[in-house]
Amino acid sequence: MPKIETIVSPALFHLYEKGIEHKNIVVIDVLRATTTICVALANGATEIIPVGTPEEALLFKKDGYLVAAERSGKTVEGFTLGNSPQEYSAHVVNGKKIAFTTTNGTRALQLCRGANKTIIASFLNAAAVAKMLAYEEKNVILFCSGWKDKLNLEDTILAGKIAQHLLPQFELLGDASNLAADLYTFCKDDIAGYLQKASHVQRFKSLHVESDLEVCLQPDTINIVSVYKNGIIA
Amino acid sequence: MPKIETIVSPALFHLYEKGIEHKNIVVIDVLRATTTICVALANGATEIIPVGTPEEALLFKKDGYLVAAERSGKTVEGFTLGNSPQEYSAHVVNGKKIAFTTTNGTRALQLCRGANKTIIASFLNAAAVAKMLAYEEKNVILFCSGWKDKLNLEDTILAGKIAQHLLPQFELLGDASNLAADLYTFCKDDIAGYLQKASHVQRFKSLHVESDLEVCLQPDTINIVSVYKNGIIA
Repeated sequence: MPKIETIVSPALFHLYEKGIEHKNIVVIDVLRATTTICVALANGATEIIPVGTPEEALLFKKDGYLVAAERSGKTVEGFTLGNSPQEYSAHVVNGKKIAFTTTNGTRALQLCRGANKTIIASFLNAAAVAKMLAYEEKNVILFCSGWKDKLNLEDTILAGKIAQHLLPQFELLGDASNLAADLYTFCKDDIAGYLQKASHVQRFKSLHVESDLEVCLQPDTINIVSVYKNGIIA
Repeated sequence: MPKIETIVSPALFHLYEKGIEHKNIVVIDVLRATTTICVALANGATEIIPVGTPEEALLFKKDGYLVAAERSGKTVEGFTLGNSPQEYSAHVVNGKKIAFTTTNGTRALQLCRGANKTIIASFLNAAAVAKMLAYEEKNVILFCSGWKDKLNLEDTILAGKIAQHLLPQFELLGDASNLAADLYTFCKDDIAGYLQKASHVQRFKSLHVESDLEVCLQPDTINIVSVYKNGIIA
């Protein structure tokens, strides 16, 4: 039976790295990088290149890419696109390539380079992601991006939701997987209400981007699964 | 209002290190180092010195110390005492000093050197620990030892129990504190039953030390709070 492991922080990634070439890794950054990526691709963006720094993103401009950069929740000065899924409407991104850097999500993606497949997950496409994982029948790592290496509630909850989708065909391996699955059970009837106490939601309020929260928590509205391969998400 | 932070793994300790000289740190290693320490001191041991290696522990033998060493759940060869609280009866430890090394707990203790106070917690003395923390009114870090840098359920649950004892006089700070408090709420009616899925409980079964589990989960049977200071727990 294939197994599900869960990583609650990028700082713990090294503990799970052995054998990742045989595993599918699901990268989760609910608020907001992986949600924004899902929305951009669903709205017709043709590819997204996650890069480490705003400077690297700017290098793509001359090749016709849209460039996007966020740090600590805010759009970086000099960029018109940040990390709000609401900015990535079809009108803006359809047919476009995007170079993208964010506080947590892009770093997490870069750690996954050696995996069999690296899959981008959000609440919006969680059921579709689970369906792909079930079809592949490989061991899975649910990789939460967290916030500056601390664990966060929203990523852990989505890991739990995907894990619950995969049971009983998969086995939960390790305490972090059980914790995530049970946290999802604990709060699933009102995830938005539960997340009012999450650090990042409180950060959102101070940044006046609360409307993103509702967008980021819509479950299973997108049927597209995006894969990160050779430095490109498509 | 004093704040409660929670560290789910020693690998994340550095994220919380700033200002620890003003904070009380609670070290948690339910299965079994901090439980064993609480039991030994309650049964009359006069001091416990946590050391890094079995070799260091042996150096204390000539000074009349009992020496104890555990690795990966087993008593290290050449030692008569390991890491089972049931070994530390009054008959064995009353009036004795002990030098002690374990897989996870002693390492966690050594990380806390700069804290205002480092307090040893187990389910057995959780209420007494909370009472001391409430009396002191300082910011608190609940520090889970985990298992080889991965988080574990039992330490996270005890962190949650202590946090719940401290509410509403203290404030939960950060997502890990909320996660721990809610996990405790989720499973508190049957913690032993819940922990059947914990990795370390499954490890216990393979080591034939299941009877320790019951001992380690007895809530609030010991009224003693032990503090780690200048390398000594007393």
